[in-house]
Order: sequence, then structure tokens, then C-alpha cells
Amino acid sequence: MANNVGILAMEIYFPPTCIQQEVLEAHDGASKGKYTIGLGQDCMAFCSDVEDVISMSMTAVTSLLEKYGVDPKQIGRLEVGSETVLDKSKSIKTFLMPIFEKCGNTDIEGVDSTNACYGGTAALFNCVNWVESSSWDGRYGLVVCTDSAVYAEGPARPTGGAAAIAMLIGPNAPIAFESKLRASHMAHAYDFYKPDLASEYPVVDGKLSQTCYLMALDSCYKSFCDKYEKLEGKQFSVNDAEYFVFHSPYNKLVQKSFARLLFNDFSRNASSIDEAAKEKLSPFSSLTNDESYQSRDLEKASQQVAKPFYDAKVQPSTLIPKQVGNMYTASLYAAFASLLHNKNSTLAGQRVILFSYGSGLSATMFSLRFNEGQHPFSLSNIATIMNVSEKLKSRHEYPPEKFVETMKVMEHRYGGKDFVTSKDISLLAPGTYYLTEVDSKYRRFYAKKAIENGSIANGHIV
Amino acid sequence: MANNVGILAMEIYFPPTCIQQEVLEAHDGASKGKYTIGLGQDCMAFCSDVEDVISMSMTAVTSLLEKYGVDPKQIGRLEVGSETVLDKSKSIKTFLMPIFEKCGNTDIEGVDSTNACYGGTAALFNCVNWVESSSWDGRYGLVVCTDSAVYAEGPARPTGGAAAIAMLIGPNAPIAFESKLRASHMAHAYDFYKPDLASEYPVVDGKLSQTCYLMALDSCYKSFCDKYEKLEGKQFSVNDAEYFVFHSPYNKLVQKSFARLLFNDFSRNASSIDEAAKEKLSPFSSLTNDESYQSRDLEKASQQVAKPFYDAKVQPSTLIPKQVGNMYTASLYAAFASLLHNKNSTLAGQRVILFSYGSGLSATMFSLRFNEGQHPFSLSNIATIMNVSEKLKSRHEYPPEKFVETMKVMEHRYGGKDFVTSKDISLLAPGTYYLTEVDSKYRRFYAKKAIENGSIANGHIV
Repeated sequence: MANNVGILAMEIYFPPTCIQQEVLEAHDGASKGKYTIGLGQDCMAFCSDVEDVISMSMTAVTSLLEKYGVDPKQIGRLEVGSETVLDKSKSIKTFLMPIFEKCGNTDIEGVDSTNACYGGTAALFNCVNWVESSSWDGRYGLVVCTDSAVYAEGPARPTGGAAAIAMLIGPNAPIAFESKLRASHMAHAYDFYKPDLASEYPVVDGKLSQTCYLMALDSCYKSFCDKYEKLEGKQFSVNDAEYFVFHSPYNKLVQKSFARLLFNDFSRNASSIDEAAKEKLSPFSSLTNDESYQSRDLEKASQQVAKPFYDAKVQPSTLIPKQVGNMYTASLYAAFASLLHNKNSTLAGQRVILFSYGSGLSATMFSLRFNEGQHPFSLSNIATIMNVSEKLKSRHEYPPEKFVETMKVMEHRYGGKDFVTSKDISLLAPGTYYLTEVDSKYRRFYAKKAIENGSIANGHIV
Repeated sequence: MANNVGILAMEIYFPPTCIQQEVLEAHDGASKGKYTIGLGQDCMAFCSDVEDVISMSMTAVTSLLEKYGVDPKQIGRLEVGSETVLDKSKSIKTFLMPIFEKCGNTDIEGVDSTNACYGGTAALFNCVNWVESSSWDGRYGLVVCTDSAVYAEGPARPTGGAAAIAMLIGPNAPIAFESKLRASHMAHAYDFYKPDLASEYPVVDGKLSQTCYLMALDSCYKSFCDKYEKLEGKQFSVNDAEYFVFHSPYNKLVQKSFARLLFNDFSRNASSIDEAAKEKLSPFSSLTNDESYQSRDLEKASQQVAKPFYDAKVQPSTLIPKQVGNMYTASLYAAFASLLHNKNSTLAGQRVILFSYGSGLSATMFSLRFNEGQHPFSLSNIATIMNVSEKLKSRHEYPPEKFVETMKVMEHRYGGKDFVTSKDISLLAPGTYYLTEVDSKYRRFYAKKAIENGSIANGHIV
């Protein structure tokens, strides 16, 4: 079996169009700090009418292949995780096939995986399992997480975002799976879902969603700790991993989630809890589970206990989710990309625990181990190629009126046909794919902004 | 690594409501034989207003677990393949979780896989790879293919159908994968897709879809033969497998497809082609690929050459697809179930080649090997438990007017909320799950028809 299978390379793309949460807050007439402190968010990216989940994933995939020098013929599996439905039958994966078809490679397994924000994790596990299976043919896997998160006007709107992430999968990876350390919690819930097929907007029960997230987190962590103990013969606590990365619908929930792990450690009397922490948390030891999810006092106390751990173990992964917003399937991996950006080669030898959550619901906690790797598949090169600072810095902030207007256009266009886009691609970086037209048969057409002048359509300069 | 990983057990469910193609043909004013000979179909199943892809998959899964005596705690992965979208975010898999939650098992990986009729094959490969991977924990995988294929009034309507199939995955299976013998063809095409999000009906280009299917078949077969030759050191021909099973949108395409394999064998001068066959096919040896897909004469000649092979190697797998119709993701596995039903333990030691196709497009040709296995996971027991003859015999034929009326109700209800179903469950077999209500928040509620009198809702008799 292939060894140290995991992530060899990564690329991230998010739209250059964004709005500051502070600006949106004021425009919405929300109380000061509601989005920035209440949600913990700084800025939110969104697709303008020339971008969608397909164009973003085309950009991420071609950029990854080019920048790491991977021949499209070397890809043997391609999986997409997304919950942004532009077609109910044809997979996003098939829209990416022209990149490989033109090199004569059509023998590429994999389709789209769907369950809310969890689809990317399912795709990632599928790719890793493939490399470890007898059907592996020695080529690379490629995982794409792509989503555009948009909400109807109202309290959920500032929790939007958009991005695509591509990850190359293979053996001897600088980011390797510890596959025995993995625990899932899957259940039937209506916390967030998309039953109104004609609308891009979800049905959201924010409070229920948060409780579902925390319950799933508890369940996964408990099972994860049990598995660790069976495997390693000792207790697990937050001390046993250098970093923790969470699916981030908004940063505040990440803060609460990590604090919840500390409360779990307290309940199990684990090594992360010292005497001072015990004192702070013992008033809550008799709460039932249900009570514990509702208790503001517990939330406050556990966040206090968690603070130093949070700053060291979680904060380095919060940059992109706070700046870009909820990217659904890409959200967890954008948080992970933030960690690579901030810590790159210092991560070698360390362990990171990831928690993936998708409403409905699906959740998994899993463990990765870092080593520096070899160029081009090294931690430092991944950080260099993702070039996160530059991408964040070169964005264009929209005023709220223009943002609302864009949302209206997108709302109107969703599921529609027979239109051409504005073709205003001035804000897009060279090499970015964009949507040009949806014809009378709903067929979608894309072009690529040229590196120099002009644009490339179907591989030809136009 | 686990050995002989594959299918341990199967169960199939299709609605008891159906219409004879002959009757529909007359009602539609189609020329005599258009559906029965032209499409090669006998009968078509459809969901009435109390059934959908979720209820069908609940029935298939619970029936499999009960009949083979599998404890729900023994399941470690559950994957669903479907292209019938009732929610764009929440997976069908999560609707099945209550079956496992009530036994305390929520640690079950896997979500939904989507690409038209191919999603079930993707789910199956994912489950098999999981069992072969380092993340396998010794438990079983479970794959569900569930779809309801319905079309707007017009020429495509007789190509509908509905079914759910559940397959148990593990090592030492009576139906084991030969994973090195597997070739895919994936490409970007608009042959059949579902971009009108408010409608259950697809956009169909029947002629293009057929050509795409045959082109993908050619590509997969060519690559499959190449891989076989590299592995075995000898040429592959249709002689090297006892059976061939095809995704069956309608039986006529299966006939054409198998004939196409013979034409491929002719082009490669393979062992299945004797002098008489050579003589019949040589007039077509100079056709370009494009011409060959359009040539009626070639079609006729190759079907003539293929006939004796078809009767022996393909016909045993055509029963359920001809009687139930196109079941999308379940279609290939319903064909496979037909083979098990017809040949059961005589299959031991034999090889079957399957061809899976999903528009958009995704296709794979792969190989399975049979051995009798051990009770309850034996070929003969699988055939006994599926009980195909009895299920087909006990169906209720609808007159065309009542069928059209049902289609209208379903069309009206699609994507809707705030309704209760007719609750007429007289036609459903005991133990069948059914839809009772979609509430004002689009939440779907199901009950189970009791084995005796009354029905079971949420596990309680009501």
C-alpha cells in the first residue's frame, strides 16, 4: 500500500470582489460590532455576474497544475465537493474535464460529493482511499472544493463567502493522513438545507445549526479520543496536537467550538486542564448536555480557559475564513490554507486536527501529520504558491449599494437561461476563468482572461 | 489489505405501481411497437405520491439489514448515488441515518455522489476503496442507488422508471472486484442535464445522448482491452467474460452497445470474430468513427454478428430494466440483479464486465469475479432474498389515464411544501416506507407500513 498518502499541493482562489463587514453592518443598520465582533468576521468575498463555482474551480485547477508543473495526464482521479447547484444532474467535475481532454486524458475517475459544507471532506477521503486501494494506477488524485455562499437579505447575509480550493493527492505527501485517527458523526437534521429548488438561498435555523455543530463536535471528539486511547494507550487532550482547524461558518463559532473541546477535556479530566481551569469549569460539571449548549456562563468560562490555547493552536488558521467568509466546502480547507500560510515549514513534524461539518448533517474529526516534503511538494512551496497575502491585498472593496445590486442580479439570474454576462472582467486577475453566456438551452460558456491583453476562449485568443 | 473486496449482499426495491409499454404506446398514439420494439421495453414502474427516492432507499436499506441479519452497528460507511434532487444541500444519506442512530451508530462515513446515472458506480467504487484503505475499521460498507426517472409528456416519457438498490460491501465477497481491470471515460457534454432547477424533468438530446454513450463505450472498451493486455499478456475479446451488463436507459441501446463491442473486436481482429463475422463487418472497416455511429447498416450487421453472443452473455441481465424502465443510478445494478436472479450459483468462477454511463458525462467499464460465497452472503441466497419474480408478479398495472393523472400530481408537487400525501398505501407491500407529509418548512416525514395491520411512524405503531 502507498505510504504517507495525503496532500501534496494546494491552490486557493477567491473572487477579487468583497465587502467589509463593518461597512455592511452600518448599511444594514445593525448594531455596531454585530458582524465584526458578534460573528467575528472582517470581510466577505462574493461572485460578481462573471463568476460562479465552475469558473472558480477551473481557475483553481489550472493554476495548481501550472504552478506545480503537473502534467494533466498525471491525474487519475478528480473529485469535486460542492453544495452550490447549477445543474442537478451534470457534475461540476465534468465541466473541468476539457482541461484534461485536450491532453488526451479522459480516464479520470470521480464525480461530485454532496452534503452541505462537508462534500469537500468526502471528496478528499475518497481520493486518499483511492490512492491506498488496489485500483490505484500510480497517478495523482485531485480534489476541488468550490462554493458560493449567498443568503437572502437579513441576519444570515453577512455569513456568505465564495472560494475554490484545489488539492493534489498522492503518496509521500508533506501533509499526510493519520487515517486511524478519524471519527464521524452523521445524523438526520433540518438545521440548514436547500429544499426551495428555484432559489439559491437556503432555509436556515441559525440557533439549531449552531447546536447541531457543537453536538456533532462533541460526538466526534469523544469518539476520536476513544480511538486515540485504544491506539496509543494514553489519553488524548488538546495538548496532543499543535493545531486545530475548524469548519468556519463565522469565526465566533470557531472560538466556541475550541472552547467546547476544553470543556470536554475538563469532563474527562485530561492533561490540558490545570487547577485554575478546573476551578473555573467545575460550576458547570453538573449541567446536562442540553443545558451545556445553552449556558452563556459556561461559554464565557470555557472561552477564558481556552484563550491561551486558542491563540497558539487555532488563531493561525482563521485568517482566510475571517477575510473571505463562509466558503462552504472550501471553508475548512481555506482555514487550513491559512495555517500553511502563517506557519509553513515550521509545521514539519507537527500534528493538526481538523473538524469538518456539513448541515443535514455530516461531521468528521481527523488528524494530519506534516513533514517539510520535497520541492515542488514542500510546505514552504505550497505557502509560496498560494500567495495568500497578495491575493487578499489585491481585492476590490465594493460599497454596500453596489454589493446589494450585484446580489439582486445574481438572484435574478439563478437557474436562468438566455443571457450574456456583463463581460466586465477588469477586476479579475490574468489567468482567471469567467462566465460569458448561458444560452437558450441553459448551456454555460466560459473564457479565460489572458495573461497579457485579450482573453482566451476555448483555448484560442479572441 | 483486505482480499476479494466486493458485493456481499444485495436488495432491490421498485414501486408496485407500473404501466405496460404497450398500453402507453396505444394511449400516446405512437406507432405500434414504438416503445416495445423500438425501445425494447415491456413495462415501466413509477412512484405514486406516497413514494420518492428517500422512501425507496429506506425500504431497500432496512430490508437488506433485516433479511441478511446485519446489525446496523456493523455499518461503517454508507454512500448514496442519485440524481433525483429533493434537496440541494442535505444528502439522501442523512435521511437514512435514523435507521442507524436508533442503534447508537452515528460514526458512518460517506455522503451522496452525483453525476446523472453514474453516481451509484462512484459510490460503489468509494466503498470498495474504503475497505481496501488504511482508514477501514473492519465494518461493512453500504451503497444505495436510488432514483425516480420521470419525463415531460412526449417521446422521452416511456423511458422513465424508478427503483432503489442497496449493496453490502466487504472483503471475501461472492462478487469481487478485479480492480486493475477498470477504464473510465469522462468528458464535458450536454447530452442530458437538469439545469431547470424548478422542474424534475431533464433537458434531453436523445440522439446526442446515444452517440455520447456509444463513444464513451468505445473509449472505455479500448482502454479496458489495453489494460487487460498489459496485465495478462494477451488480447481481450468478448470471449473473455461470461457476461456483460450495461447501463440500460432502454433495452434497444443495450443491444446496440453490445454489438458495438463486437465491432471493436472486429477492428482489433480479436478472437470473438470468425470468418463469417469478418465477411459481414468488413464493408464497414473504412468508416470513420463519426460515420460508424450513424450507419444503420453497420448497426444491423453488427447486431446480427452479435446475436448469439448477446443471447448468452447479455440477455440474462435485461429482465428488470425491461420490466421496470430506466432507474438511473439503479439501472446498471438492476441489470446486474437480473443476472443474479437468472443465473445465481451457476455464476461461481465466472467473470462479468459492467459498463456504467452517466450523461454529462461519466463512464466506466469494470470487471467482477463470482464465487459461490458463504451463507448468508452467497450467490444463491442473494437471488433468494431479492425475490425478483415475486416482486415483478405482484405489481399493479395502471391504466394510462390514471398514470398521466399521477404524473400531473407529482409534477405539481415537485419542490413543493405544505401538503400531506393521499395516504393510500394499499398497494405497498408490508414493511415499505412511504411519504406522509411535507410541512410548511419543506421538512419531509415518512412512515413504515406495518407487517400486520396499522403503520409504524418514527418507530411507533400509529
